[in-house]
Amino acid sequence: MNSDGGHRTATAFVPGHITGFFSAHPADDPSQAGSRGAGLALTDGVTVRVSPGSGVRLNNEPIEIDPVETVCQKLGVAAAVEAETLLPLGAGFGVSGAVTLGTALAANTAFECQRTENELGTIAHYAEVDAGTGLGDVVAQARGGIPIRTEPGAPGYGTLDGLTGRPRIEYLTFGELSTEAILTGDTNQLSAAGETALNRLLETPTIEQFMAVSRQFAHDAGLLTDEVERAMAEVEAAGGQAAMAMLGRTVFGTDTALSDAGYEPNVCGIDAAGSRLQPVGAADSAEKRTF
Amino acid sequence: MNSDGGHRTATAFVPGHITGFFSAHPADDPSQAGSRGAGLALTDGVTVRVSPGSGVRLNNEPIEIDPVETVCQKLGVAAAVEAETLLPLGAGFGVSGAVTLGTALAANTAFECQRTENELGTIAHYAEVDAGTGLGDVVAQARGGIPIRTEPGAPGYGTLDGLTGRPRIEYLTFGELSTEAILTGDTNQLSAAGETALNRLLETPTIEQFMAVSRQFAHDAGLLTDEVERAMAEVEAAGGQAAMAMLGRTVFGTDTALSDAGYEPNVCGIDAAGSRLQPVGAADSAEKRTF
Repeated sequence: MNSDGGHRTATAFVPGHITGFFSAHPADDPSQAGSRGAGLALTDGVTVRVSPGSGVRLNNEPIEIDPVETVCQKLGVAAAVEAETLLPLGAGFGVSGAVTLGTALAANTAFECQRTENELGTIAHYAEVDAGTGLGDVVAQARGGIPIRTEPGAPGYGTLDGLTGRPRIEYLTFGELSTEAILTGDTNQLSAAGETALNRLLETPTIEQFMAVSRQFAHDAGLLTDEVERAMAEVEAAGGQAAMAMLGRTVFGTDTALSDAGYEPNVCGIDAAGSRLQPVGAADSAEKRTF
Repeated sequence: MNSDGGHRTATAFVPGHITGFFSAHPADDPSQAGSRGAGLALTDGVTVRVSPGSGVRLNNEPIEIDPVETVCQKLGVAAAVEAETLLPLGAGFGVSGAVTLGTALAANTAFECQRTENELGTIAHYAEVDAGTGLGDVVAQARGGIPIRTEPGAPGYGTLDGLTGRPRIEYLTFGELSTEAILTGDTNQLSAAGETALNRLLETPTIEQFMAVSRQFAHDAGLLTDEVERAMAEVEAAGGQAAMAMLGRTVFGTDTALSDAGYEPNVCGIDAAGSRLQPVGAADSAEKRTF
């Protein structure tokens, strides 16, 4: 324990997460609710620093993120949360889930809460589902890689698998889409398309199939916006495959799918690790060793 | 698919894994057999390259690793496996598990076997348990971090949790210990000590507690060798905590535990990601983009 009783600063990194397709599975207990589907954990993500104090800041601007408040309440801590990311909010990258899970991980260290990774994942998943801001990002972000959510829910309820590939990812964002508005609406059409997509992916679990069924889901789910639909068509015309990030006005593809179609996309990779604490002060301890 | 029908070279990295304590859980079906316990996934690990051909080489020397043969049989592939590592074999770092799991991951890509990560983990776990060379390394190495094996067995049977910390790790090896000889002997005393250790860790899931219960397990399990016992005592006298890597004549500690006691240990970190394919030719594609 530290000289100040264990209250210090800790930092976590949580990958962004693009969902390619999903089905919604509501339940009275938010820990058991969630989604089935598959997506990509991205090397572009969110860094979350937690220290004693109050308030949440995203890229140095004050912001209210309800599930972050819930996490702090459940851990019984008074935390100042500072999140930094290059990813846009509300565009299908799971930024709210990332800040929520990163807060849980970093607060656990900063305040010595003595929770395991599954316990922290459960708290973050619960908070996200309870707020209506997401159904599957947290468990996927905790796992990393190319997560397949084979059963919905927090650790202990849900189950995960994954694809082995680590392709280059390209993406382009046209703007926001309200996750909450869609998830609280009629999700029957969307969920039927999501179940079909999952069955087809599990029959042939490859990246190519993931892109193909995600692209089909984007068409079938009834959520396509004009600019995303146009971009998907242009990528297809250029010989590639693109899909829509659920839920955002964002198009994504593997390798050079978007740039081959003449776009200038953001480029990142697959984050194999999933959410994690930053190692304890590598720079600090190196400095200490010098003197 | 590639021009040669998909048969090419693929490379995986699998972290080394030190088990701090464990209990053995045999079963007729190797997928359901395994161990409970906890350990450390290390940034020091094994790189495994798979291409069409035959034979297994470790650090450029021919070697027979039975579970690697089993994996290739189960995937139906004729593979040449080249593994490289700085970790010693038979000293408690899970090198055989790492080569086995790395072969499964890389072969899946090289031969386009279309298996998921859980399926490949199951095949590797089965092969390792069946050969008697390990009980829990594979599932821990697939997960990464500081894995707690809460229930034994392959994905679908076993369950995992983890500690959030990422401390610096120091280790020192005095030589080999036969995993097979110990696992096929009477494991009652060992397993009773392992169950006690797991219960104590789950009551207080911190790194400090992991080191404390692992140290106690090393004493209680009846496996201590003279040089490991002496090193543990010297680390304790210097104010640190050390434990024994199960199963090897290896002592390990966190932060500067071993160097504070005057040793010159190997130093590495916690590998948060677990086993993973190497991203597809980062250097190659950068080169391609230049011209």
